[in-house]
Amino acid sequence: MSAPSQPSTPLQIGLVLFPRVTQLDFTGPLQVFSSLPNAEVHLIWKRIEPVTSDSVLVLTPTTTFADCPQLDVICVPGGFGTDDMINDEEMLAFLRKQAPGAKYITSVCTGSLVLGAAGLLKGFRAATHWTAMDFLSAFGAIPTKTRVCVDGNRVTGGGVTAGIDFALTLVSLLHDQKTAEAIQLRLEYNPAPPFNSGSPDTAPPEVLAFMKDRIAQAQLRRGEMIDRAAARLG
Amino acid sequence: MSAPSQPSTPLQIGLVLFPRVTQLDFTGPLQVFSSLPNAEVHLIWKRIEPVTSDSVLVLTPTTTFADCPQLDVICVPGGFGTDDMINDEEMLAFLRKQAPGAKYITSVCTGSLVLGAAGLLKGFRAATHWTAMDFLSAFGAIPTKTRVCVDGNRVTGGGVTAGIDFALTLVSLLHDQKTAEAIQLRLEYNPAPPFNSGSPDTAPPEVLAFMKDRIAQAQLRRGEMIDRAAARLG
Repeated sequence: MSAPSQPSTPLQIGLVLFPRVTQLDFTGPLQVFSSLPNAEVHLIWKRIEPVTSDSVLVLTPTTTFADCPQLDVICVPGGFGTDDMINDEEMLAFLRKQAPGAKYITSVCTGSLVLGAAGLLKGFRAATHWTAMDFLSAFGAIPTKTRVCVDGNRVTGGGVTAGIDFALTLVSLLHDQKTAEAIQLRLEYNPAPPFNSGSPDTAPPEVLAFMKDRIAQAQLRRGEMIDRAAARLG
Repeated sequence: MSAPSQPSTPLQIGLVLFPRVTQLDFTGPLQVFSSLPNAEVHLIWKRIEPVTSDSVLVLTPTTTFADCPQLDVICVPGGFGTDDMINDEEMLAFLRKQAPGAKYITSVCTGSLVLGAAGLLKGFRAATHWTAMDFLSAFGAIPTKTRVCVDGNRVTGGGVTAGIDFALTLVSLLHDQKTAEAIQLRLEYNPAPPFNSGSPDTAPPEVLAFMKDRIAQAQLRRGEMIDRAAARLG
């Protein structure tokens, strides 16, 4: 929160983008990171060209895989687009290249599947969206049902909105608790969900059944992509 | 949640953009609205050209004030840029033109100041960011310290992250609770803030003092802009 806790060179934080990313997976953490003193935030994709999200919001990268500096924090958001990214050699090569020099290797939602496919979660506990929990072990990760999972320098968040809890946790690790608390106050992050349906454990059974039915086809396709990615990883 | 609750023509939902908008103010609600069945979401600004947010994320409008169809839901997000918008005749004229035909007139964070400056909150209870609460009465609104404030067809959210609670509440009004619960489950909105600093009532005193000190200059400038806007409104 105060000057002495700030490093002299800006912290390099990078969030990767890709088509059909769930935009809130990264706009939540982005809002938190943007309030961080002395940090430079990058939005990274193969090319500097607009990327479609899962909504009408089109995303414009600030740098490319080729031009991105060494990152202190790598963050992979999730979304249906991760099904393609777990088999995308350019994405996986970028993550593998950045990982050894990074302080923290992180993800939100199904972004952890991409970290897994890059071989970066072997033996690590990791979180993901509740619908993707069973897929993590294909990459040697230990699926962990928690909002934010910290295992060494792997920090992974649960589904979508967990990105805000994840980012505040990460800020407390990168700086200190006071810095995270100041950002929390600025973002008035004092949540009061009007309903209690945010987890498969609390959602009304018919709502859970509806969602499971709705994603059934997508889950089958995801399973095939995971098998392919796991086979490639070996 | 099921077909009978869906209207036959798509619901028209519009979020206005402007320079220095706090991106999470609208990306939170946008994520919720994007999961809504049979809805068309618009991002609206004066021109179809990228708009800078308060972060490195650049925002691309999907339509303009001139071309936007009549909206069922108008939503104004907040951010430092609202200081300019409360005195921006084009923005205020757009809101005044849309308001009579809209089902819901809404805002997140300091977006309520813009609704107020357009004369759309006179006599209505309204929420806003905790730092802006005192400014609402300049426009004849009744400042209300709550996460989501529903007063007739005015639905206003508190600061930044309150946009998610706001949007789920609005979905339950537009559709039904089950639809909102299904979206909440999809977004795994089961928040677990790592700290308890999200409100001036719970933040550690030194964190609150730090934030108040940091925004003191901006508050003075905001006060001047509010006075000007209130005088114009008459």
